[in-house]
Amino acid sequence: MPYSYETDGAAIYRQSFATIRAEADLGRFTPDEEQVAVRMIHAAGMVGLERHIRFSPGFVAAARAALEAGRPILCDARMVSEGVTRPRLPSDNAVICTLHEDGVRDMAQEMANTRSAAALELWRPHLSGALVAIGNAPTALFHLLNMLEDPDCPRPAAIIGCPVGFVGAMESKDALWAAQPVPCCIVEGRLGGSAITVAAINAIASRAE
Amino acid sequence: MPYSYETDGAAIYRQSFATIRAEADLGRFTPDEEQVAVRMIHAAGMVGLERHIRFSPGFVAAARAALEAGRPILCDARMVSEGVTRPRLPSDNAVICTLHEDGVRDMAQEMANTRSAAALELWRPHLSGALVAIGNAPTALFHLLNMLEDPDCPRPAAIIGCPVGFVGAMESKDALWAAQPVPCCIVEGRLGGSAITVAAINAIASRAE
Repeated sequence: MPYSYETDGAAIYRQSFATIRAEADLGRFTPDEEQVAVRMIHAAGMVGLERHIRFSPGFVAAARAALEAGRPILCDARMVSEGVTRPRLPSDNAVICTLHEDGVRDMAQEMANTRSAAALELWRPHLSGALVAIGNAPTALFHLLNMLEDPDCPRPAAIIGCPVGFVGAMESKDALWAAQPVPCCIVEGRLGGSAITVAAINAIASRAE
Repeated sequence: MPYSYETDGAAIYRQSFATIRAEADLGRFTPDEEQVAVRMIHAAGMVGLERHIRFSPGFVAAARAALEAGRPILCDARMVSEGVTRPRLPSDNAVICTLHEDGVRDMAQEMANTRSAAALELWRPHLSGALVAIGNAPTALFHLLNMLEDPDCPRPAAIIGCPVGFVGAMESKDALWAAQPVPCCIVEGRLGGSAITVAAINAIASRAE
């Protein structure tokens, strides 16, 4: 075996988080926010990401309380729902992604929108008090904001708004941050994505590092 | 509906890729490599990623030929295997992730290695001529390199080596690049991850944008 390397998973996490805390500028975060931010930086492999992370006041507490109360996690993409580390969840919470459910494609055509946006219509029975995690599609985040304009739409407990990319990602996250219909966390600008979103969920689910 | 936004998925892709081509420095890539790099930048939401992308000569052709020949895609994480867009695959290729198969946890303990590394032992029957995609665990990439030190180990057709993070990611990718046991693609340094890896697979699978 010519290649030798660290093979102890716990040691890898410990060293990684120590490097992030030595290099990143985390001073403006509360202790709860700092744990979430560190895990997001870890998933991105990118010190500097912290400059783009925004938490609204009480976000971590609201999101964590939702999970402790057994509420589901609603994800816009399978790469998000698959990444959630189930043993970290405090109440064996349901992790739901409706993107590939029957009827979503037809609904998207009727709505003249993306499948990612249409899939959120199937969230309505689960939405009350849930933790929402949007880590892929700007259209999903925009559609959620439009759904929440209706006072009869159930309110989630908290929203992780981290869609990624070049068209609508920045704009949808800016819109979420301006509206703040519920406590939320965003990564400003183009950066975001499923790995960063999953990292935020996993950090909220358990303080264990 | 107070928020209006681009809802046409094809238009979103078109605008995104045009922005990337206007902003990124893609001149050193061949046309085939350029398409892969553009999709990787898209997934990361990060112009500048291209400076860290390396393709060995013939990588795209080798990887594409493997898929056209019906060989499987072997992934180190479910976030990678779930992200592959099945309709883009030229031969309805199998997409395999062995991480959660029975016995992996015990094997990892016996090997004194991570589950991500141990899971690769279950790749052996599928490895010959396959497209390997490592988008999460440095230990998986290091273990693959050690497996390939054995001349009796079957050879994949090509390797996407994009583990992410702060411990072993850079080192494992540097080791792959130095050894080049088969044609390969890496993202140098700490950056990488499942989204970038999936983007490379999806671009190799089909030239359609």
